[in-house]
Amino acid sequence: MNNQHLHKLRVKNIGIDTYRENTIYMRADCHICQSEGFTALTRVMVNFSGRSIVATLNVVYSELIHHNEAGLSREAMKRLEVKDGDEINITHLDHIESLSKVRAKIYGKELNEISYHEIISDIVAGKYSNVELSAFVSSCADDNLSVNEIISLTKAMINTGQRINWGKDMVLDKHCAGGLPGNRTTPIVVSIVAAAGLMIPKTSSKAITSPAGTADMMEAITRVDLSVEEMKKVVKKENGCFVGGGSMQLGPADDILISVEKALDIDSQGQMIASVLSKKAAAGSTHVLIDIPVGKTAKVRSNEEALHLQYYFKAVAEAIGLNVTVVITDGRQPVGNGIGPALEAIGVLSVLRNETNCPKDLKERSLVLAGELLTMSGKFEQGKEKQVAKEILESGKALNKFMAICKAQGGFTEPEYGKYRFDVLSEKSGIIKEIDNRKLARIAKLAGAPKSSRAGVWYNAHINSKISTRDLLFSIYADAKGELEYAKDYLKSINDLIIIE
Amino acid sequence: MNNQHLHKLRVKNIGIDTYRENTIYMRADCHICQSEGFTALTRVMVNFSGRSIVATLNVVYSELIHHNEAGLSREAMKRLEVKDGDEINITHLDHIESLSKVRAKIYGKELNEISYHEIISDIVAGKYSNVELSAFVSSCADDNLSVNEIISLTKAMINTGQRINWGKDMVLDKHCAGGLPGNRTTPIVVSIVAAAGLMIPKTSSKAITSPAGTADMMEAITRVDLSVEEMKKVVKKENGCFVGGGSMQLGPADDILISVEKALDIDSQGQMIASVLSKKAAAGSTHVLIDIPVGKTAKVRSNEEALHLQYYFKAVAEAIGLNVTVVITDGRQPVGNGIGPALEAIGVLSVLRNETNCPKDLKERSLVLAGELLTMSGKFEQGKEKQVAKEILESGKALNKFMAICKAQGGFTEPEYGKYRFDVLSEKSGIIKEIDNRKLARIAKLAGAPKSSRAGVWYNAHINSKISTRDLLFSIYADAKGELEYAKDYLKSINDLIIIE
Repeated sequence: MNNQHLHKLRVKNIGIDTYRENTIYMRADCHICQSEGFTALTRVMVNFSGRSIVATLNVVYSELIHHNEAGLSREAMKRLEVKDGDEINITHLDHIESLSKVRAKIYGKELNEISYHEIISDIVAGKYSNVELSAFVSSCADDNLSVNEIISLTKAMINTGQRINWGKDMVLDKHCAGGLPGNRTTPIVVSIVAAAGLMIPKTSSKAITSPAGTADMMEAITRVDLSVEEMKKVVKKENGCFVGGGSMQLGPADDILISVEKALDIDSQGQMIASVLSKKAAAGSTHVLIDIPVGKTAKVRSNEEALHLQYYFKAVAEAIGLNVTVVITDGRQPVGNGIGPALEAIGVLSVLRNETNCPKDLKERSLVLAGELLTMSGKFEQGKEKQVAKEILESGKALNKFMAICKAQGGFTEPEYGKYRFDVLSEKSGIIKEIDNRKLARIAKLAGAPKSSRAGVWYNAHINSKISTRDLLFSIYADAKGELEYAKDYLKSINDLIIIE
Repeated sequence: MNNQHLHKLRVKNIGIDTYRENTIYMRADCHICQSEGFTALTRVMVNFSGRSIVATLNVVYSELIHHNEAGLSREAMKRLEVKDGDEINITHLDHIESLSKVRAKIYGKELNEISYHEIISDIVAGKYSNVELSAFVSSCADDNLSVNEIISLTKAMINTGQRINWGKDMVLDKHCAGGLPGNRTTPIVVSIVAAAGLMIPKTSSKAITSPAGTADMMEAITRVDLSVEEMKKVVKKENGCFVGGGSMQLGPADDILISVEKALDIDSQGQMIASVLSKKAAAGSTHVLIDIPVGKTAKVRSNEEALHLQYYFKAVAEAIGLNVTVVITDGRQPVGNGIGPALEAIGVLSVLRNETNCPKDLKERSLVLAGELLTMSGKFEQGKEKQVAKEILESGKALNKFMAICKAQGGFTEPEYGKYRFDVLSEKSGIIKEIDNRKLARIAKLAGAPKSSRAGVWYNAHINSKISTRDLLFSIYADAKGELEYAKDYLKSINDLIIIE
């Protein structure tokens, strides 16, 4: 009933960035606060020109805003599309029905498809506060979701975002479960598959907790923030692309949930599967290859866990009409030499250019994955697909395709090493037995990756290689002296980064 | 290592109230943001004169604050004890170790005593963001805590707050699990027990979701926001008191957790038990009577649930050295007539004054509970305790004690009815069979209780009483016409408030 009591104030742009949390600033002596009983942290509806957002109230006891004015955080102004002086309505937030479903989930109940649709719709509409989002994410954490719930969640995510239609029966895609520094096969695989005449419009994310994502690496050499329309043009011309998915609103629910998971640093198997498959479906893919590297310090730590994931991926994919193949790969050590955007790009180019000293492991993994994708397409002689991929790579066709895509996306810049370097030498001789991926990634991040695109680690000592005292294990690159020091400080504080016996 | 890189800014009071969430406002072009890589929502340490708080960063893109200045939210300024122009240090927030325990709890693990101590200590120190608090509360919700975990949580809450020492072997106290509108036995029970010569320094909370708590009711007639020192003086003189617990910092962790539970509207049995018993222990009580009303629309809905709670209360109490008696009472309907602070006070005074038309049910419940407390003390002839309580009440000694306590706390004001009244008459005749406590409470709240102390409901139709058409069922009181309308609108929208057959 309170919705009938509308109240108007003029927007004042006070230039405060509160990131995702929409905030409205109203005076303590404002007539709306007083008549409606609004206090700090009350959640209110803010309405302008047919659009609405939910915002959290901060109460102002100063002359920061004048009578009849309200401040809005920058993101809130953008979402509501208002500017200084526009007149907004502020109303009570109606009861959010879907929160009762979240409570049921907290109490351990299994939710149905309608419930997930309601929850995800309200989340995308910005109705949940951070506290409520956190409760939902926590209740889904670990393996608290059944297969049916993951299917429902995936469908809800697909139905609340954009979905690209390529007008083709077969649109290929790949995903890596992650956790291996330097494992940058995507640019090579996409180049091979696109050169083979198949459509593979790859969208990638930026790094969330790693030293680089594919989008970070590609951004070191070309433009990746293409709109959906621009991406379509590139793909029409070249069969493939390397686009950053962040700006395309393909999975608005997913982006919000991931930001909360990241803040809590918790993993949710169900949410991860829903996230990956809903993004692929939204991107218009039909055939998806999923690479799960297994290793003690990779994201997935045991073969058992990988098989469990494989089962879930396949069950959910089938329910939403996606064709999925899962490959379980060796995840014991970094792939290639580069860790960090530009350093990884240097390795990728070295493989594409068939340089004699190119990273063989990166090349081999790329050929395996490209071969699997060609196999999924069913368009090549059975059993020969990896050979076809190899010929495309070694003939230079993959490099040509890569360069053509870069050109179509906006140009190509040769990647460079960071300005400052620190070499880490072996203190003993022997055979490399074990490498801690997580600690190595941490060093690259402290050195500035991915924000400093030329920062990171150039890794030189793979498992089973023979090392003598004072041989180079790896080099740290940075673009700022302070960051090089951070990385070195951390290096001094840890043990067992590389085990030599 | 980053803690060594200290950075200074001058405080500017920008008068923004963000309630519990400490917020710091720094310019986007500030040297600290730039060198440390701080962005919106980064959690930072703010240090001043040996004190530290954790605050959430909001980034300012306007001239709201000048170079070398930082804004702080009002609560943050208070906690840090800074004023305009003071120089603060802003540093990286170190890794919060206890969050790994919260993650373990989310993943369904049982936590030990040390873990709870670490979590609660960090919560009291303000280190948890709302997102993190919400994850912890959600992971403890429903009956997710074992008895041992509740004991650990209770101890952690006691050890992180103040604890009053009365220097006595026996300090009595009572608690009601709640959910019954008008069930205001506390002022009567405390007056009887104190008049019997026993110490009962009662601290009560304000309403969280109900139309009134004991502190709200007492505030309608006397002062309740006493400091610990003031409370001690009153108790020394009169054996008892009626003090609002909110301002005394007796359970700082509890206050924070309750605010999150309230925001999420979830119940956590374990947290509720820890909350009640830790507050009693902190208040210095040794013997606690716990009243659990059971009814379809009370807080506790079945006898089974009540027995379950009884078991938990007794097990935890024993572990922390409290003597607890639990009584399970009838919770099918409102107690007395008044619902709302002043209206309840009118009923309480009517019982204390032995008026002939006083609410008999409120009197009887008070005598039962007072009798139980006298029994717990072991200082009266066995089996005669309720009779002793009755004599104290009917002789006027309880009223004298009540008035003496009010006087010692700051005076007495006769409570009054609200300015506007709306009578609800029966549309049929018959016997009252069932009453929905929750809907009745909602009506009292919409009418303005507890904020408008004279607002609420005067209830007239108890179970088994005979009603004729157009007899008065209840009256709604309000101090503002709009609020009376809200309550009437709601009344029109509901069914089955009172079932007459």
